[in-house]
Amino acid sequence: MDHAVVMAGGSGTRFWPESRARRSKQFLDLTGGGPMIRETLLRIFPVIPPERVWIVAGAKDAPHLSHRALGIPKRNILLEPEGKNTGPAIAYAAAAIGRKDPDAVILAAPADHAVANVRAFRAVLRKGLRLARETGRFVTLGIPPTHPATGYGYIERGKPFPGKVPGAFEVVRFAEKPDLPTAKRFLRSGRFDWNSGLFLFAAGTFADRLAKFLPEVDRGFRRAFRGNRAGFANRLARAYRRMPSISVDYGILEKETGILVLPANVGWSDLGTWRSLHEFLAGTGENVAFGDSILSDCRNVLVRTDRGVAVVLGVDDVVVVRSGDALLVCPRSRSEEVKGVVEEIRRRFPSLA
Amino acid sequence: MDHAVVMAGGSGTRFWPESRARRSKQFLDLTGGGPMIRETLLRIFPVIPPERVWIVAGAKDAPHLSHRALGIPKRNILLEPEGKNTGPAIAYAAAAIGRKDPDAVILAAPADHAVANVRAFRAVLRKGLRLARETGRFVTLGIPPTHPATGYGYIERGKPFPGKVPGAFEVVRFAEKPDLPTAKRFLRSGRFDWNSGLFLFAAGTFADRLAKFLPEVDRGFRRAFRGNRAGFANRLARAYRRMPSISVDYGILEKETGILVLPANVGWSDLGTWRSLHEFLAGTGENVAFGDSILSDCRNVLVRTDRGVAVVLGVDDVVVVRSGDALLVCPRSRSEEVKGVVEEIRRRFPSLA
Repeated sequence: MDHAVVMAGGSGTRFWPESRARRSKQFLDLTGGGPMIRETLLRIFPVIPPERVWIVAGAKDAPHLSHRALGIPKRNILLEPEGKNTGPAIAYAAAAIGRKDPDAVILAAPADHAVANVRAFRAVLRKGLRLARETGRFVTLGIPPTHPATGYGYIERGKPFPGKVPGAFEVVRFAEKPDLPTAKRFLRSGRFDWNSGLFLFAAGTFADRLAKFLPEVDRGFRRAFRGNRAGFANRLARAYRRMPSISVDYGILEKETGILVLPANVGWSDLGTWRSLHEFLAGTGENVAFGDSILSDCRNVLVRTDRGVAVVLGVDDVVVVRSGDALLVCPRSRSEEVKGVVEEIRRRFPSLA
Repeated sequence: MDHAVVMAGGSGTRFWPESRARRSKQFLDLTGGGPMIRETLLRIFPVIPPERVWIVAGAKDAPHLSHRALGIPKRNILLEPEGKNTGPAIAYAAAAIGRKDPDAVILAAPADHAVANVRAFRAVLRKGLRLARETGRFVTLGIPPTHPATGYGYIERGKPFPGKVPGAFEVVRFAEKPDLPTAKRFLRSGRFDWNSGLFLFAAGTFADRLAKFLPEVDRGFRRAFRGNRAGFANRLARAYRRMPSISVDYGILEKETGILVLPANVGWSDLGTWRSLHEFLAGTGENVAFGDSILSDCRNVLVRTDRGVAVVLGVDDVVVVRSGDALLVCPRSRSEEVKGVVEEIRRRFPSLA
C-alpha cells in the first residue's frame, strides 16, 4: 500500500514574528488557506488516504496537531523525544510503517511547503509512487527552476530513465545550495532541478539503505521497537539520545546510487522566507496584504497585520509583519536574515522569541 | 507687562498614527521630554510667568490642557468655538490681554515647536520683548537656515535696525514655502531666515493693525467682549461663525510695514513631520528609537512603538511608528504625505483617524 510521512519537526524562525518558539512555521497560515501542515495533508489525501498518512513531529508540537479532525489515526502520530533532523525522523516513520506493511511505498514530504497547481502535484505523486514501487529505487521530485535561486539545493538530471512510467531521469548528483554564479550556470545548463525535499521509496529499500549508510540509526530503532509496548517511550528516548543529528539527504540520498528524479512543474515553493512567500503569492511588482491595510505607492511589499491597520506609504521591496506585540520591518531581499535577529530577540526579549 | 499667547489650535495630522482626531500633535510627547505644549510653556515661564501666559485652544482640546498643574490661571485659557486659523486666535488673546493690560507686550508662539538651545532661546525672547516695547513694531524671530528647507516660509532680512537692542534687522518681505531651487537661492544669498512663527508685538500696535487689516475680525471681538459676562460664549460663537479663516501672517504681517526680524540661532524646529523630528533628535546617519526595539544595519531610521518590540533590519531613511492599533511605515523623505493618507484612514477606518 502507499503511505505518506509528513515531517513536521521544523521551527522556521525565519518567519518571526509569526513563528515563535511555541508556534512553528508549519502551524502558521501563511498563504491564507489554513495552517501549512493542514494544506499539505489535504493536498496528499486524494492520493494517500488519512489512514495511511503519518506525521512525525516534536513532542512540544503535539497540542497543535489537529490530525483527529482530519481523520488521521492517533497511532499514526509519531512524536520524537528530540529533534535529530530528517534522517531519524523518516527512519522512525519507515520503521513504524514497515512493521505494519512491509511492502509499503512511502512518500516523504515536509509539512511546510506550498504548491500552486495541486492537480498536477497529485498526478506527479501518483507517478512517483508507481515508479518507486516498480523500480525499488528512491524517487525524488525535482522542480524546474524559474530563477537562479541560491536558497535551494539542486539535483542534476542525467539520462532519461526507460520504463513504464515516463518522464523520469537518472540523478547524476545532488548539489548543495549554490552561490549565485553557480546557480546561474545550473539554470543555463538546463540540466538542474530544485530539490523539493519530497521523495518516495519502498519501505524495503529504505530499511536496506538505512542499515548500510546509517547503522547507528538503524540499530536505535530496532532496539526501540523490540520489547513490550509499555517500555517503548523510554527505549525510544534512549535511542534518540545516542543518534546522530543528520539529514536524510546527507545521510542516505547523497550516498545512494540509482536514484531517479521526476520533474514536477507544479508551482512548488518551500516558503522558506517572507520573500519566498511574497513570490509565491504575487507577481513581480505586486503587493500582498493580510489584514486591514493601506498601501500607497508601494511595489513588491508584503504586509501582514493580525490587528488594527497598517499603513505603508511609498516603499518598495519591504516586508512588514505585525504579530501580537512584535513588529518586523525588513527588505524583502534580506528576509533570510530574520533568523539571525531571532537569536538577539531570544536574549533580549525572550517572551517574544 | 509681558504676556505670552501659546496657540494650541492645530491638529498635526502628519504625526499620525500618534496624532489622532482626539489627540492633537501639541499634546504628544514627540521628543521624550513631555507633551509639546508643556515643553513650550516651561520654556517660556522663566521669561514670562504662568500668570501672564495665555493659551488659545479648540474647545475639543480642553480636557488635555493641564494648565492648572503648571500654574496658569483658568481665565487665561481661551477656548475658541471653532478654528479660524491664527489670525482670529491671536486677535482673541490680544483682545483679552489688552482689556486687562493695555500696555502689554505679547509673545505669540505656536504650541508645537521644539528648541534645542533653551538658554539662547530665552535670551532672544527677552530681546524681542524689549524691542517690541521700545519700537512699537512687530518683531519676528527668524531662524538662520541650516539647509534649503522647502517646508518653511522664509523672511528676507534688510538693513540692520539701529537702536538700543542690537541684532535686529528690517524685514524686506515674507516668502511663502519655496520650491527647492528657490530655497537654495535663499540659502546662498545669506539674507533669508526661516519664519519660526514666533513673533512679538505691543497690544496697542496689534489692536490698531487688526482694525486696519482685518476689520471683520476686529468688529467680531469688539461685539463679543461688549455686554454681560453670561452672554459672552454665545456672542463669541456668533462672532466666530462670521469671521474669515485667515492666518496672522497673511492677514496682518504680510500687509504691515516696518516689521523687524531678530535672528534666533537657538536650534529651533517646527517638528512638522516625522522627518523633522528625526532631524531634530539625531545627526545624519543616526537612528532614533522610542520603545523596545532592535535596529540592525539601519541608518536614518526613526522607530516609535508604544508596546511590544519593533525589529527593523537593513533599511535606511525609514519611519516606523506603532501606536495602539495603528502602524505606519514610510520613507523619511515622504513623511509629509502622511497628511494625505489620514484622509483615506478617515474614510476607511474612522476609529483610527
